[in-house]
Formats: sequence, C-alpha cells, structure tokens
Amino acid sequence: MLVNVEKETKLFGQSIRQNIRVTFNYEVHFTHNIFNLKNPTLAQAIAADDEKKPKKIVALVDAGLLEFCPDLLSQLTNYTKFYAEVLTLAVEPMLIPGGEAAKNEPKLLEQIHQLIEAAGLCRHSYLLGIGGGAVLDLVGYAAATAHRGIRLIRIPTTVLAQNDSGIGVKNGINAFGKKNFLGTFAPPYAVINDLDFLTTLCDRDWRSGIAEAVKVALIKDAHFFDFIHDHTTALAHRDMDSMQQLIYRCAQLHLEHIAKAGDPFEMGSSRPLDFGHWAAHKLEQLTDYRLRHGEAVAIGIALDSTYSYLLGILSHREWQRILKTLAELGFTLYVPELAQQSSHIENSHCLFRGLTEFQEHLGGELTLTLLQKIGKGIEIHEVDLSFYKQAISLLHEFEKRKQTLVTTNRGER
Amino acid sequence: MLVNVEKETKLFGQSIRQNIRVTFNYEVHFTHNIFNLKNPTLAQAIAADDEKKPKKIVALVDAGLLEFCPDLLSQLTNYTKFYAEVLTLAVEPMLIPGGEAAKNEPKLLEQIHQLIEAAGLCRHSYLLGIGGGAVLDLVGYAAATAHRGIRLIRIPTTVLAQNDSGIGVKNGINAFGKKNFLGTFAPPYAVINDLDFLTTLCDRDWRSGIAEAVKVALIKDAHFFDFIHDHTTALAHRDMDSMQQLIYRCAQLHLEHIAKAGDPFEMGSSRPLDFGHWAAHKLEQLTDYRLRHGEAVAIGIALDSTYSYLLGILSHREWQRILKTLAELGFTLYVPELAQQSSHIENSHCLFRGLTEFQEHLGGELTLTLLQKIGKGIEIHEVDLSFYKQAISLLHEFEKRKQTLVTTNRGER
Repeated sequence: MLVNVEKETKLFGQSIRQNIRVTFNYEVHFTHNIFNLKNPTLAQAIAADDEKKPKKIVALVDAGLLEFCPDLLSQLTNYTKFYAEVLTLAVEPMLIPGGEAAKNEPKLLEQIHQLIEAAGLCRHSYLLGIGGGAVLDLVGYAAATAHRGIRLIRIPTTVLAQNDSGIGVKNGINAFGKKNFLGTFAPPYAVINDLDFLTTLCDRDWRSGIAEAVKVALIKDAHFFDFIHDHTTALAHRDMDSMQQLIYRCAQLHLEHIAKAGDPFEMGSSRPLDFGHWAAHKLEQLTDYRLRHGEAVAIGIALDSTYSYLLGILSHREWQRILKTLAELGFTLYVPELAQQSSHIENSHCLFRGLTEFQEHLGGELTLTLLQKIGKGIEIHEVDLSFYKQAISLLHEFEKRKQTLVTTNRGER
Repeated sequence: MLVNVEKETKLFGQSIRQNIRVTFNYEVHFTHNIFNLKNPTLAQAIAADDEKKPKKIVALVDAGLLEFCPDLLSQLTNYTKFYAEVLTLAVEPMLIPGGEAAKNEPKLLEQIHQLIEAAGLCRHSYLLGIGGGAVLDLVGYAAATAHRGIRLIRIPTTVLAQNDSGIGVKNGINAFGKKNFLGTFAPPYAVINDLDFLTTLCDRDWRSGIAEAVKVALIKDAHFFDFIHDHTTALAHRDMDSMQQLIYRCAQLHLEHIAKAGDPFEMGSSRPLDFGHWAAHKLEQLTDYRLRHGEAVAIGIALDSTYSYLLGILSHREWQRILKTLAELGFTLYVPELAQQSSHIENSHCLFRGLTEFQEHLGGELTLTLLQKIGKGIEIHEVDLSFYKQAISLLHEFEKRKQTLVTTNRGER
C-alpha cells in the first residue's frame, strides 16, 4: 500500500533527516519603580500574550532584597490587585536565599516545583523571578523543567543580572561541586530591568556586576571599554547615570552576541562570552564562594589578559590599561587561591583543573578566548601552564603595588 | 560617550527586542542488527561530528531488554572496541528498569547525573539510550539537563518508541503523580531504529505501539489508516514487513508534524498529536500504570472518536470503522476506570480531572483534537461531559459485544 515490496527492502539502511527551526522572541525592558501602580510595564508584558483570562503568577523573591525593600511583597500584591484583569498571584510569593546558596541547595528546586504543582500553573502561566543572578538561575531552571517550560519573567535586581546573566538564555544550578552542572538553555518570556533596585546593593555587589561589562567591552567593543575607563571614578562612587549607560550597552552587546554569533545554544566549542571565566568559575569554588561571581570574573579577566600579554598577543600598554581600569573600579586582582597549583592538574584543588572543567562544561576541544587588543578577542586551543604561573606572579606583584599604580594612573588621565 | 545626556533620559522606558533562531538537525536511521561489527550506522552517526578524538559514551540500557538479548552488553562492548577510533565507553553501561517505573523514580535521574559527572562527560560527549519510550524519556531528561545538554543518541527498542516517542523532541519524568510533570524540549543528536529489537517484545508491547500509528493516521492521513485497516490481521499476528512499513510511515508523519506545523516546542495551546491523550494519560494514572501507554491511547482514541460521533462531527460509519480496527488489532476499548466519574471534577480520582490536567500541561485555553473524518482532525475548546459519559457507555457496550463485532467485521472485509 504505502511502500511496495520492492521498495520496502530499501527502507532499512534509509534515514529521514529532520530539520527543526525554533524562534524565540523576548523584550528586555528598562524601567524605574516597577511595582508603582502607574507603571504598566509588567502588566503589559503579560497582556502581550493576547489571551483573555487573568494569568496565574507565582513570584519567587530573593530574600536578601527584603532587608532593603521591606515593602516589596505588599507592593507586588497591590500591583497584582490593581492589574487583576491581567494577572493574579496564584499563591503567596516564595522567598529564596540570595547569592550562590540558591544554586547549591537542591531542595529549593524541588520546593519550587511543588509550588508550581500546587498552584496549578500551566505552560501559559508565569513564574516571576525577582532577584540576583543566582536566584534567577535557579528559578529559570525550575521554570524550564516544569511542564517542559513555564513562561518566565525575570526581574533582575543586581548589576550582574541586569547586564548579563538575567538577560540571556541560560539557567542552572550547581551539583557535585561543579558550577552550573545542571541547567538548560531556555529564553525568558520577558526581562524587566528596574534600575531602582540597584540602590539596594552593597558596594561589593554594585562593583561585581561591572566585571561582565569590562569583559564584553574587551572582547567586542573598544569604545565601550573607553567609556568604562573614563568613568571608573564615577562608577566606583555609584554614579547612577554612568551605571545606567553601562548596563544598557552591556546588555545590548550580550543580546547581540546571543542572537547573531550563530550559536545561541552553544552547540559548538567556542564561547567568547566566557572570556576570563575558566579561572573565575574555579576560583569561586576554591574560595568556597567567598568571592562574588563578578569579583572572580575580574580576576579571571586580569589573568587571561596577562597571559595574552605574556604570549606576545596583547601589547604591554593595553595590558596595563586593563589591570589599572579593573583596579580603579575597586577590584582585587589577586587571591591566595591562585597559588593552588598542584603538580597533578587532575587534583580538584588545583586552579588549573579549572581548564579541564571548563572544557568539559563547554564540550569538545579546549577553546579559550584571549585578547589580541582591547575590543578584539582571539581563540586558542592550547595553553602553556608555565606562562599562566608567570601571569599569576605578575598579578601578585601588581596587587602588592596597586595603591601606587592607582595613584600613578590617576595622574595620567 | 555612548549615550549623551539627552538620549540617556529616554533609555529607561525603552526596550530591546531579542530575536533568536535556533536550528536543530538530526537523522532518524532505520537499520538491522545495530551492534553487528559490519553495521557502521552508530559509529557513523558519531563520526559525523567531525571531531578528531574518540568520543566518550555512556550507555543506559533498559534492563528488561537483557532477558531477551542476554548478549547485548557484550555486543555493545565489542562494537565500541571495534570502532575505538570513533567512540569509547567511558564507564560500564547502567541498567535502568524498563516501563513507567523508569519515570516514577526520581533517584534514577540523580544516578544518571552522577554517572555523567563521574565519567567526565562534556557537552560533546554522548549518552546512548537503549530501550523503550519510558527509559528514553528519562535518559533524555538527564541528557538535556547535564551541562545544559549532552548529546543524546536514542536507540528505541519498542514499536511505540520507534514510531513516536523516541523520534521526537520531548523528554520527561513523572512527578507529583502527574505524567511528564518534569521535562524539556530537546531534540536528540540522532535516532537509530533497529527493527530486530521488535522481536523481543511481548504481544502487549508489540500491539501497544500501533496505537500511536492509528492516532496519527486518524488526524493526518486517511491512506495510512486504510493501510492499518487492511493489515490488522497481519499486524496482530506480528508480521514484520507490515510493522516495518507502519513504523516508517508513522515516524515520517510525526517528524513532518514537528518540523512543519509551526510550533515544534509547543508554545501555543494546540497539540493535535495529543489526540486521544487526555484520557490516556489519566487512565494510565488511574490504573496505576497497569495499562501500557499505547493501550491507554487506544482507549483514548476510541473515546474521543465516539465523542466526535456523538457531537455529530464524525459519521457513524467511520466511527464504527475506527472502533473495529482498534478491536481487530487486539485493543481492549473499555476499562472500569472509565467509570470513575466523580460529581466533583476537581477530584483527582475522577476521569474528567484529566481534562484539566491536560489543559494545565499544555497551557492556555483547553484545546482538544476531535475527528471530522478519518484523516482529518478538528480542534474544539469546550466539552460537554454528558456526551462523554454517553461515549463511555457506548464503549462499555462495544467491548461487551466485541467478539461478535470482530467476527462480523471480518466477514465484511
């Protein structure tokens, strides 16, 4: 009938080639005072789905925020009441411990799934994640895996989350002592960056997020690096206008990369946005997360820039400019854990084990991004550990002499 | 610098629209005797990545298979040794209990993740899932979430997995008593259908998979339904040629739907391939998985076809033709759990609660596919439970009279 007997014998040994194209669209909004009743951004983001009934929402809130925004939950409740035609809180918001703790406790994932089940959310309901990058990573993973994906609206409250982790397509939690061992690629339904949350940040968190802006400037946009270099003092002194510009441009560069670099779900071996990250991930783990992600990234950038200089790829002048900019922003560029260099690279306490773990996480051939010049990355596939050891010594010296250097640099500007 | 002060005030209230396109390609191969050293299909599927070093593989094997294929593990080991330039077993294969048990035990997921970690798999390594649909659903979920996605090669060993669940883009496990509550959309790296595995199936599993072929024929392809109708006896008597044709055409229709119907990751509310599935999922649960998935689907198809007839959408003749075809294939079209009709639809023991659960799982407006005629589905958004109750009575009567009907039908053909 379908296949006659002659053809049938050919069926096996045959194959069907499947080609699937999936399109994801989402808006990254910039706003102030998100839960002010006059601010329709959130309600509009949900109403954009053109479905009639009010949509069920479950809110997951970074507990750390409530210290600084004690009225946050009541504001959220009022907001949902005011926009009751569009959205309805299905259950009381759940509080989630902020920082890396959110990603290290597997029970939290289970609790969020339980909440989703109890609230009867469907694939057209919404999880609202309000918090820093770690909380959003956890909430994103829970959203992506319940009912094979519930809509996620991210409301990032830190610099890092607003310009980097909160606007992209990844989520994840840590497992087996490995950063982001579990996770998926899952674009959000929308992102709403509310600048006002940044006033709640302690200095370390304010500064920490700038590291990712420095990173993306270094590999993609020399003008943006100039902007950061010219605004180190303003940024270090918490100038909101400078920060606003930094976040917008950084977000823009990240979004452009994801959409246009050809590998949004990172199926290849190359991941230029992870410049400086092999050491950063390992240092976070070696310091037991004493270092914030951005603080570790600043060290990772300094290390891979120094390595680039030692290899003769990056000029001495630009290398120095990078270290000084990071230092002026207030970053410490050396921690004792950099010296954990076991003779056995397979030793999990050895910094260089981070290279293997990075490769395992990306997959395929080891691919690191180094700097050819400010604004331009270059990929390499082999490393020379002796140069890395030398780079670490240079960072140690730089850190010891930092005060002097910072002063000198200020004179130069 | 980047944004002058005048522009800057406009930044907030602005938004960046992100548009991401992701392409997934994979081959569904049809072969015999997959681990015969002369059969390069598996080695070629892996070598297709054009990466140089032998790739690490972790094999996860349906334990039920070993009863019928006691040499499977040694064959697999020999195969990997023979093709050592291409692939290498990173650890001993892990055995997974077959059937729905695989999806009901959360510890299995954890154990697979542990194995992936211990074996040092990266995003370019391979999980090899060998087994029925349930095992592949579990393995697929583990693969999709470790390192945000390890390559998955599915080797489906049942009719159901070869023509439906094993070739698509979904994975999942059960949680909170809900089928596929956890899962993701994640296309495989490749699928290899080896017909020889079908000889290992018991009659129930052989038959069970045919239900999904009946389903896709009913909503998409009247000629394919004719083929099934004309081959009920051959299929029921385990004729391999008929089965081969059935699997190929069914796989083709499923793959076409996924690629071309415009919503491969099911972001909308419509899911025509789930014709008959609201009742099927609920019956699996109500019978404590005493029913195989395909057996439940056959009842779900019979129920929704009968409902279509009662609504006046489907002709009496075609309705009867559907029931008779299912009966001739050996399916039972009534189980006592169909009568679990609580007056409270929210009661989780009520069959009709399956409608709400189906809607929750899909998201958005309730959308059921019914039949306009054989080969053509139609979507509806409201149901009349009194017609459903009547449909259930009709199935009860049909089942009681089945022997007679089957005989009559044989006379008619």
